[in-house]
Amino acid sequence: MDLQQITKDTAKVLTSYLTYQAVRTVVTQLSETNPPLAIWLNGFSSTDKIQDGEAYLRELLQADQELALRIMTVRAHLAEEVAGFLPEMVRTGTRQANMEHRRQYLEQLTQLHTTSDDSPSDPGSKSESNLDNLSD
Amino acid sequence: MDLQQITKDTAKVLTSYLTYQAVRTVVTQLSETNPPLAIWLNGFSSTDKIQDGEAYLRELLQADQELALRIMTVRAHLAEEVAGFLPEMVRTGTRQANMEHRRQYLEQLTQLHTTSDDSPSDPGSKSESNLDNLSD
Repeated sequence: MDLQQITKDTAKVLTSYLTYQAVRTVVTQLSETNPPLAIWLNGFSSTDKIQDGEAYLRELLQADQELALRIMTVRAHLAEEVAGFLPEMVRTGTRQANMEHRRQYLEQLTQLHTTSDDSPSDPGSKSESNLDNLSD
Repeated sequence: MDLQQITKDTAKVLTSYLTYQAVRTVVTQLSETNPPLAIWLNGFSSTDKIQDGEAYLRELLQADQELALRIMTVRAHLAEEVAGFLPEMVRTGTRQANMEHRRQYLEQLTQLHTTSDDSPSDPGSKSESNLDNLSD
């Protein structure tokens, strides 16, 4: 596992996602103040294109410099405001989601197990071994 | 701008991305130890499906519980190891990328400007006003 590369890739994905959120914010603002421009920016900003936030901004700078600068300002603001909360949210979120998946699966197995106890022909070995695996 | 909602959405995207990286890690490990299973997991894990990491894991738990638990363990590990570096990387990365976009654009304008200086018929007003906008 190349942790350094994964960290770099994750930061890049995150920056592109914040660029996407900045575009959404500016589109929402423009839909109040300049609806035709909001429609134009929305059409320009396909999801595919924003997958790479930097390539998207380079292209937008050529098409409408003022909008590109505005989106850059908003994403820098988002990076300042949002990034600090992410480590704790992602750590806690992952831990809780993992626990919830294990709980739901265990519950399902227990139900299967109870049902199979009623049937004397079922050896129940599959669900036993599955339960063992849940402890790690 | 609903910062709280954006933060929540960003954390969710980030968790799904770490789930994707966990799947990639496990596929790589399996391609050494159990190639047929690596191929199966790779086929099961389409990019579309992992867009929602939790739905993906629920489905995988039904298909292969052991693999699902392994991926959950790896993504929890990634969350612990990777998340802490992200705020600084994303803040600095965004600031530097923004600066680089501005610099490249300014350079391009300056070249256009120099070229247009050679041509007496060009009023140069477009590039002047563009330069003014770069200061914010």
